Amino acid sequence: MRESEIIDLFLKHLRKQGDLPLGDDAGAIRLGDEWLVATNDMLVRKTDVPDILTPEQVGFKVVTMNVSDVAAMGAKPVGFLFSLGVPGDVDGAYLEGIAEGIGKALEFYDIPVLSADTNEADDLVIDGIVLGMTKKPLTRSGAKPGDLVCVTGDIGRALAGLLVWKRGVEVPERIRKSLYEKFLSPKARVREGMALSGVASAAIDISDGLSKELHLLAKMSGVRIEITSARLPIREEVANVVRALSLDPVKVGLFSGEEFELVFTVPSERVSDLNFDFTVIGRVEKGTGVYIDGTPLPRGGWEHLVPHDSYETF
Amino acid sequence: MRESEIIDLFLKHLRKQGDLPLGDDAGAIRLGDEWLVATNDMLVRKTDVPDILTPEQVGFKVVTMNVSDVAAMGAKPVGFLFSLGVPGDVDGAYLEGIAEGIGKALEFYDIPVLSADTNEADDLVIDGIVLGMTKKPLTRSGAKPGDLVCVTGDIGRALAGLLVWKRGVEVPERIRKSLYEKFLSPKARVREGMALSGVASAAIDISDGLSKELHLLAKMSGVRIEITSARLPIREEVANVVRALSLDPVKVGLFSGEEFELVFTVPSERVSDLNFDFTVIGRVEKGTGVYIDGTPLPRGGWEHLVPHDSYETF
Repeated sequence: MRESEIIDLFLKHLRKQGDLPLGDDAGAIRLGDEWLVATNDMLVRKTDVPDILTPEQVGFKVVTMNVSDVAAMGAKPVGFLFSLGVPGDVDGAYLEGIAEGIGKALEFYDIPVLSADTNEADDLVIDGIVLGMTKKPLTRSGAKPGDLVCVTGDIGRALAGLLVWKRGVEVPERIRKSLYEKFLSPKARVREGMALSGVASAAIDISDGLSKELHLLAKMSGVRIEITSARLPIREEVANVVRALSLDPVKVGLFSGEEFELVFTVPSERVSDLNFDFTVIGRVEKGTGVYIDGTPLPRGGWEHLVPHDSYETF
Repeated sequence: MRESEIIDLFLKHLRKQGDLPLGDDAGAIRLGDEWLVATNDMLVRKTDVPDILTPEQVGFKVVTMNVSDVAAMGAKPVGFLFSLGVPGDVDGAYLEGIAEGIGKALEFYDIPVLSADTNEADDLVIDGIVLGMTKKPLTRSGAKPGDLVCVTGDIGRALAGLLVWKRGVEVPERIRKSLYEKFLSPKARVREGMALSGVASAAIDISDGLSKELHLLAKMSGVRIEITSARLPIREEVANVVRALSLDPVKVGLFSGEEFELVFTVPSERVSDLNFDFTVIGRVEKGTGVYIDGTPLPRGGWEHLVPHDSYETF
């Protein structure tokens, strides 16, 4: 069964949802004058984890990918839970590395662990859960015509790093370090997410690539999004490495996954309220779809660009 | 690696815990004048699920086992999350049965689903997470000398049902129905748990058998627990079936797992505040350990009684 079929099958039977409809980065329920947001994301070693990641990086990432979803809701992370599926013949040192990585991430993000569970399983499986609190949840559905479209940090390094690793490309150490930092040890934008609550009109984190996230934002907000390729924050080292591989840096920036940057829309008069670095990459308009430099942006174009290097085919 | 070794390994690296130390049915953090409790429990089909369970029963149980932990904390369940690991060749009808079971349980317990995640994995794995709220969390560590030791409902039917199934025992339909109700479709004691908050001094749910849970309560509260075998709420059909197998009904009652009844301690003057059915089975005293009819109760005695029928060896 395909993932979308499984999701449809469950949605059919799960009619009772939270105080926000399913479909955002995290679920939410109202508790008095605050909102509790909650998200979970399971990592299966065999299918989700490139061999190059150390166990510490795997543990850190399980926390980061869930914290990022809470950050995209404009919430402060307040608790972490996890369940482990562990094969009988697991390497103790690998497992301890994962424990260290989770521990370091919880210190980095300043979150307590609330509950843990361990089980025997064929695969090494880690399900991470993060809870957060916010006065005003940020959804994917609030973008309004006239809003600016913005992104934190830079994009493309995660995929450029993956390409360098998979294709065995020789690059100067300084460049490899820059790419691998984002490919192997991405961080969630917690401070930025909290600052966006009450200011941004919509937000989403980059899990599956900027292109796909923009399409989701446009669809869920019922708007058209127009972006300008020249404005995309793509670092010079990404552009150089990608061009050397005869690929287009803009496409790599648009389809690079697990960046954990935040994409958000904000009314232009509120932009000056934001006290962190970000880049304006476009504008929200009336209509539907996503356009780049005036032409439609393919949603899942990645497969056709570099068929054997996508995040789905690890 | 053994489960206890894995847990020790993680505890070593996870120093930052919630507002209650780890070791209770669920973790907890204080939010203003209320407490958020959170628990997770992963179910691996191959190792945790007897073949006799229908997929609906499996789905229902994933919710129940987590709701029960929240109930044992005296909290009202407010949200459910789950992650699925799904083999590529999964039977769609089986998966739909699980979805139906989860859906029915969420309606039964009146809980919304907040978030879900699905992944490819070798095993069918379901990680369930339940969040709850309470003004006053019930822990395992508050039992005081002089308190009464009580249990909701009855004990032993789950294990008696398992024995009947595994040994192919012929029993009248009425009796099979009574045993299988608890073996296949146990329910969590939500109303009772909420009523115990602020009244009981300590509580725990029966996951691994009354004996083990009493030992945990005694250890975490720093007290001795004395119970009387004649007071244990063991139904006549359990006693009859178990005696026919040349086993001791009291031992079956003490070691029957996944009952999801609540064991609690309560000051005798507060007993009249409890408006639900329960049985007083003993008393809290100064000292350590658990005693039955004046002699020490073995903690993990089950393995020696019926070696091939324990819940660990499904």
